[in-house]
Amino acid sequence: MKNLFIYLLTFASCVSVAFAQKTKVVYNELPVYGKLFDTPSKYHRVDTVKYNDLPVRVKHLFTNSAGLFVTFRSNSSSIYAKWCVTDAKVSSNLTSIAQKGLDVYIKNADGEWQYAGSKGTAKTCDEGSLIANLDQTAKEFLVYLPLYDETRSLKIGVEEGASFLPLPNPFQKNIAVYGSSIVQGASAGRAGMAYTAILSRRTGLNFINLGVSGSAKMEPEVAHMLAAGTPEVFILDCVPNSLPEIVSERTQYFVEYLRANHPNTPIIMIPSVVRELSYFNQVWNKRNAEQNAQFKKEYETLLTKGIKHLYYLDSKTLLGTDHEGTTDGTHPNDLGFMRMADEIQPFVLEIMQKHNLL
Amino acid sequence: MKNLFIYLLTFASCVSVAFAQKTKVVYNELPVYGKLFDTPSKYHRVDTVKYNDLPVRVKHLFTNSAGLFVTFRSNSSSIYAKWCVTDAKVSSNLTSIAQKGLDVYIKNADGEWQYAGSKGTAKTCDEGSLIANLDQTAKEFLVYLPLYDETRSLKIGVEEGASFLPLPNPFQKNIAVYGSSIVQGASAGRAGMAYTAILSRRTGLNFINLGVSGSAKMEPEVAHMLAAGTPEVFILDCVPNSLPEIVSERTQYFVEYLRANHPNTPIIMIPSVVRELSYFNQVWNKRNAEQNAQFKKEYETLLTKGIKHLYYLDSKTLLGTDHEGTTDGTHPNDLGFMRMADEIQPFVLEIMQKHNLL
Repeated sequence: MKNLFIYLLTFASCVSVAFAQKTKVVYNELPVYGKLFDTPSKYHRVDTVKYNDLPVRVKHLFTNSAGLFVTFRSNSSSIYAKWCVTDAKVSSNLTSIAQKGLDVYIKNADGEWQYAGSKGTAKTCDEGSLIANLDQTAKEFLVYLPLYDETRSLKIGVEEGASFLPLPNPFQKNIAVYGSSIVQGASAGRAGMAYTAILSRRTGLNFINLGVSGSAKMEPEVAHMLAAGTPEVFILDCVPNSLPEIVSERTQYFVEYLRANHPNTPIIMIPSVVRELSYFNQVWNKRNAEQNAQFKKEYETLLTKGIKHLYYLDSKTLLGTDHEGTTDGTHPNDLGFMRMADEIQPFVLEIMQKHNLL
Repeated sequence: MKNLFIYLLTFASCVSVAFAQKTKVVYNELPVYGKLFDTPSKYHRVDTVKYNDLPVRVKHLFTNSAGLFVTFRSNSSSIYAKWCVTDAKVSSNLTSIAQKGLDVYIKNADGEWQYAGSKGTAKTCDEGSLIANLDQTAKEFLVYLPLYDETRSLKIGVEEGASFLPLPNPFQKNIAVYGSSIVQGASAGRAGMAYTAILSRRTGLNFINLGVSGSAKMEPEVAHMLAAGTPEVFILDCVPNSLPEIVSERTQYFVEYLRANHPNTPIIMIPSVVRELSYFNQVWNKRNAEQNAQFKKEYETLLTKGIKHLYYLDSKTLLGTDHEGTTDGTHPNDLGFMRMADEIQPFVLEIMQKHNLL
């Protein structure tokens, strides 16, 4: 028994009985991808001990597993998961699938990642089948972690006797996307619909989710942390959380610090989506317009200072034009996220081509 | 009707103090629209006492306020609501905004209903501001009720001294849409994104939501209830809940009963969306294909029997072709619902034109 226990610990696997199917399921841990840096806490996006001077709220949000994923190959006819999150309540503008759940893609015959299933939970720890009744050819799977909670543990299960092979990150290069709740993924219906995730699947590039809901305020400490990474591109989509004064105070330092540490890395500035609220709410209308006007002004000032490889996505239609692209007037629904991806993708790819980064 | 309004204004109003703003708010009840029939229980879609022989689960679901809405005119700079639902838990594939919340549209300068704000709740009774900081021109408002809960009460509040005028139903004619959870509105992010609601706003026609989640099984009693209404068109989008055997057993009677009672009313049969699950889940793949094949076969049999004014929307792409149109592999997200509306709208309008119903 002791030997068996050691065996299990060694391989981080365990055999248990799935309640419904009475199928023996072998659970495995997997490496977690989607990070700008390795982190000592496997399911955190940023090492919040190393970057201890980050604002408290920002550190907390980097413990959320937004944008993280695991990937493996298996011929199992069902895929299971056991995972734990915190007891945080589900936000009114999120499903529990998006906030606390898992979202599964399979590489299809065309070599594209195709949505296959997803699962939410009302519990802090849950387990069960994610997808079932698959044909038993070997397939590549990609499982996104919860967008808006700290993942405490995750094991992926396959049927006893099925093949199981951890895979390397399928996405190449890193594009660091620093931003607000919108980058973090509110209000995608499931984790795979955050715009960074859509863009990664479509382009094969690793769009890294560094969204910090409500807290993307361009503090110098965030610039320092980001500059410690070595992405191919920086994207700054942080205006929604920054009042015009904050945009005015902090943009220059933030961009110049990144530029000083990464002389040739393209930096893309994305203004705030036009909040749907702002068409009728006059306070939001003014704030939204001033935030974006100030961000544009900062961009122009940076250009006049001679900052190179700096780009501004000058768009007022990131969410489309029919006003249906949000769940709550601020946060894109899956329609809005698809439209954002449609606008951002060609803009980023063109810049990367220009810089010979593709 | 005028008397009703006087009654409402006189007796069903109350002045209370909104906590945050310390603004005096006057609350009013409003007539509820979006029903095929008047109902003694204001927030129910069907009179479940009159149609007492409906299956228990179907009766329960018709107490959910899916598709119901109120409409009014006001120049208040904020709009408030006080409403109660049940203590049912929020489903993993829904936001609390969609399941238990309110979704607000304003008629814009182009005469179109434009999304303006929405609010979810974790409580059985909640109150607060739905939208704020409006300019004080008079506007027309449309507020959708919760999709997946029984609304127990609803009052709409405006600032003391602001105008408030109940409006008649802005949508003309009735198109009765009987169907599954998808018709009921899972997994729209908010009530206005159920496909019946999108279609009503776009066409000015009243697409009546008769979705009964998991329970659209074409029981004869449902046909009897539907036939008691007098819509311009019947739409049957009930295949997702009906196993192939059920489709085989019940479709003929269901359609023939409607036809016998409504000799000239177009009946549109919509097959099940191709569930995204079904591309990999072989059991769902087979079931989905068999359900739709059987429904098509029933349609053809009905044609050979000489049933007139019967139409079949022969589509496998109701959710689009990129596989991203659902939240859980079955239920459309807002992207999927928009795509469904894009396919269903021209099909229905062409039929209505042909029948001189527009």
